[in-house]
Amino acid sequence: MTKIKATNITWHEGHVDRGEREKLLAQKGCLIWFTGLSGSGKSTVAYTLEHALVQRGHLAYVLDGDNIRHGLNKNLGFSAEDREENIRRIGEVGKLFVDTGVITLTAFISPYRKDRDANRALLQPGEFVEVFMDTPIDVCEERDPKGLYKKARAGEIKGFTGVDDPYEAPENPELVINAAELSPQEASTRILEFLESMDLLPELTD
Amino acid sequence: MTKIKATNITWHEGHVDRGEREKLLAQKGCLIWFTGLSGSGKSTVAYTLEHALVQRGHLAYVLDGDNIRHGLNKNLGFSAEDREENIRRIGEVGKLFVDTGVITLTAFISPYRKDRDANRALLQPGEFVEVFMDTPIDVCEERDPKGLYKKARAGEIKGFTGVDDPYEAPENPELVINAAELSPQEASTRILEFLESMDLLPELTD
Repeated sequence: MTKIKATNITWHEGHVDRGEREKLLAQKGCLIWFTGLSGSGKSTVAYTLEHALVQRGHLAYVLDGDNIRHGLNKNLGFSAEDREENIRRIGEVGKLFVDTGVITLTAFISPYRKDRDANRALLQPGEFVEVFMDTPIDVCEERDPKGLYKKARAGEIKGFTGVDDPYEAPENPELVINAAELSPQEASTRILEFLESMDLLPELTD
Repeated sequence: MTKIKATNITWHEGHVDRGEREKLLAQKGCLIWFTGLSGSGKSTVAYTLEHALVQRGHLAYVLDGDNIRHGLNKNLGFSAEDREENIRRIGEVGKLFVDTGVITLTAFISPYRKDRDANRALLQPGEFVEVFMDTPIDVCEERDPKGLYKKARAGEIKGFTGVDDPYEAPENPELVINAAELSPQEASTRILEFLESMDLLPELTD
């Protein structure tokens, strides 16, 4: 066990600058915001990309229903008000992660343009990378990984995005992915190339 | 610019295991929870420790009023219900940070034992490090960095912890620090030594 020697430390006050953490991580924090219908491939692509980033030595983390809906946002339902608050909190958490230097991925339907744009506005230009999973609804509905479209069509679920609640497509997303045309691996590769082109992965080497 | 070669990537599904990120960071995620009266030195010690950790190559981040009250928790006031929700959200965000592998520090009065214990219960044993800033109230009040005790004594602020709202001291905190006896540097060194002794900084070298 190494004994700490306080004399070896230069002491500072106040928050650590974000740049110091980014230097340590050899990357820049950013928020990769996946949006699209249920079944459009958001989580699948996000996980695939997360693995590829970590494999290359980058710190990446996916926020999704698994770790948000049962934790931070477990006191929110599906009313219009709660949906807005759900997306707002995710944006604020994303901002904290970005400030920490983490390449942060979020996988939520996030159907309303104003909520997504509000989260974009929390960050600096270039830090918010909106990935529109533009998979045709008939493909999403055929996949129906959670059986939700079936229930929505049967009227068992009300206010389901794409069935009886609107999905507002992004007007200027950084990337558009159609999961009917690209595999999760191809989609991830496309996003990695975009991150590289934006100098968000400065130390990435092959 | 390096062209991504998808063939060099081994593709995976599902969330990245926390262990993979911790290996990459050469550290273990933990939540260092500072609690104590206003003016007891929570933020000062947390910032000092954050700097020392980053300087030694560790990824550390402080959650405090600066980045939480104006962001994630800006829709919360100071009612009993809102105070509980404030601490609950911070605990849930802390859990996400710990899962990312970050050495996470929180600096909030967090006066109620049950709220702190609920956050401890969100994590695995050993991951929650409660640091009780046990600085005598007369010292805190003399410091009064934000002029809040003065206002509370004058009746201008109601429900102020230590004046007309209780502070419930931890029963079994991992560490107790009295800022009247230890400088922020000495306090940080003590916490670093504790983290080392708990094997939370496996790669720390002098």
